[in-house]
Amino acid sequence: MSRQIDVIIDFLTEDYRRRIDAAADRHGYTTRYYPDSRSAVGNADDCEILFGHCSQRVIASARSLRWFCCCWAGVDRFCRDELYQNPDCLLSNSSGAYGVTIAEHLVMCALMLLRRQEEYGALIRSGGWDTLPGNIRSLFGSRITVLGTGDIGTQFARRARAFQPARIVGVRRSDRPCDPAFDEVRRTAELDAVLPETDVLVMALPNTPDTAGILSRARMALLPEGAYVLNVGRGAAVDQDALIDALNSGHLAGAALDVVTPEPLPADHPLRAAKNLLLTPHVAGNTTLPYTQQRTVDMFLEDLDNYCAGRPLLHAVDRKRFY
Amino acid sequence: MSRQIDVIIDFLTEDYRRRIDAAADRHGYTTRYYPDSRSAVGNADDCEILFGHCSQRVIASARSLRWFCCCWAGVDRFCRDELYQNPDCLLSNSSGAYGVTIAEHLVMCALMLLRRQEEYGALIRSGGWDTLPGNIRSLFGSRITVLGTGDIGTQFARRARAFQPARIVGVRRSDRPCDPAFDEVRRTAELDAVLPETDVLVMALPNTPDTAGILSRARMALLPEGAYVLNVGRGAAVDQDALIDALNSGHLAGAALDVVTPEPLPADHPLRAAKNLLLTPHVAGNTTLPYTQQRTVDMFLEDLDNYCAGRPLLHAVDRKRFY
Repeated sequence: MSRQIDVIIDFLTEDYRRRIDAAADRHGYTTRYYPDSRSAVGNADDCEILFGHCSQRVIASARSLRWFCCCWAGVDRFCRDELYQNPDCLLSNSSGAYGVTIAEHLVMCALMLLRRQEEYGALIRSGGWDTLPGNIRSLFGSRITVLGTGDIGTQFARRARAFQPARIVGVRRSDRPCDPAFDEVRRTAELDAVLPETDVLVMALPNTPDTAGILSRARMALLPEGAYVLNVGRGAAVDQDALIDALNSGHLAGAALDVVTPEPLPADHPLRAAKNLLLTPHVAGNTTLPYTQQRTVDMFLEDLDNYCAGRPLLHAVDRKRFY
Repeated sequence: MSRQIDVIIDFLTEDYRRRIDAAADRHGYTTRYYPDSRSAVGNADDCEILFGHCSQRVIASARSLRWFCCCWAGVDRFCRDELYQNPDCLLSNSSGAYGVTIAEHLVMCALMLLRRQEEYGALIRSGGWDTLPGNIRSLFGSRITVLGTGDIGTQFARRARAFQPARIVGVRRSDRPCDPAFDEVRRTAELDAVLPETDVLVMALPNTPDTAGILSRARMALLPEGAYVLNVGRGAAVDQDALIDALNSGHLAGAALDVVTPEPLPADHPLRAAKNLLLTPHVAGNTTLPYTQQRTVDMFLEDLDNYCAGRPLLHAVDRKRFY
């Protein structure tokens, strides 16, 4: 087996390249860089380590692969055993690089919904200058529930705290200790008891068999009239037909989706016509931000040291849990 | 002089009315309520105290007026001596009731500008689902300057802090002690030294002879290329022609104005065509929020006690300073 690291990152700079090369050299590896997955197919088959924005095809044909470090946080597409020629191939992700930018996206969307900014935008575009009839709402005093208390949910809660909500409840599967930004943490099994006391529901879950469809029609009905739903995890977590109904009937006052099923969302998809739905094209975790890029490379290099020393990877993904 | 309090607030509820009546009664006053200024003209001439959303006409004809408590925070229209038949008439405002909602508006607009949300909105409306070429930006690590460190500037700084900016500098006229949300506070005379180190400039100033045109063409040029400007104070503070040029030339990456000259802004005004300008129709301090209404009434009743006891008003405005 050649000691080979293949890298496919779309934000590669000379500086990142130098840092990766130096670390590889220190551990006795050589490096190869590809501008995209397409150019790597067939050329990366003998690499031991893959780092970056890789397609499933690159991974499937990499017969020597022992560790794939994914540049994304969501790795549900990379958890099938069949994808890997080596059944023990390690998988790590870049969860931790996206929390800050996705939290900023969430605060923006929450305020846009509460302040009816989409309506105000339309009013301005039509040449108007009026105050809309009816109310706006505020994060101040709101009851916020965050479904998923990982990096994204935690970074959001830390920022939302500053707006003095009535309370922020985290809901999660595991019972690891939680960030003090949450007033309270409940187990996923208690979700149905939390929803009726939620004004703003923020969903930041990985895509797993347990989270698919978690915001079902029945659960949406448990939210109080006038509640808001925001989803930045995976589209599959939300029953989209039920969401359209809840928005159009006015049961929900608004929703913001950065992730949907399918992506790209067709131009004539019924979601696009739903009332008070703020759509963004899966850009909450925008990778153009310097700290996202920096953190992604830092985490890889940190785990390269761990890998070479035979220690567990800090950012390892359990392929059976999907995160 | 009849001991008479006249009230014109557009969010009057039975509860607020009961509280105002009870306080008036305790101090030996009677109350009258009007749905709007128009219905008060000619009928409020003998009142001693006016509370609410009053037109200049109501005030000008109130010959017995000794105190006008204004429901708005900006009282520049009510500072001319000629407006008052009694030269010693007291003026107070409701600064303190709007900071929370305007701060939420500012955070929303800052994130919308940095994340290019207006462009993403247009892309979604056109049926698309793509990532825009080029970068987005982040509050994380940004250098924020807040011009005006009153209630609005302070509430904004407290919220902006949670986003981990590189630093928040407050700029102000007075040397009262400042909120710890600011990393540093500079005097207005030092503004020209602060602007070149500003990524996001937030303006929350009252309209006074000193603040009119404070963001001049020359000062805009001092901002670094790619900076952002947000204004929620009064439109007169910004040289609008210079702003249009700075946006269209790309010197500024974006701006958000909730206040402009004139208001309402005509449908064909050149501001509406400026590049990356996020306009809202003077709604940052939306009065539909329960805490804004509550706080406005609370502050009036607090100062009614002060007035009747011969103590200074807590929310008094110096008509010569305009705030």
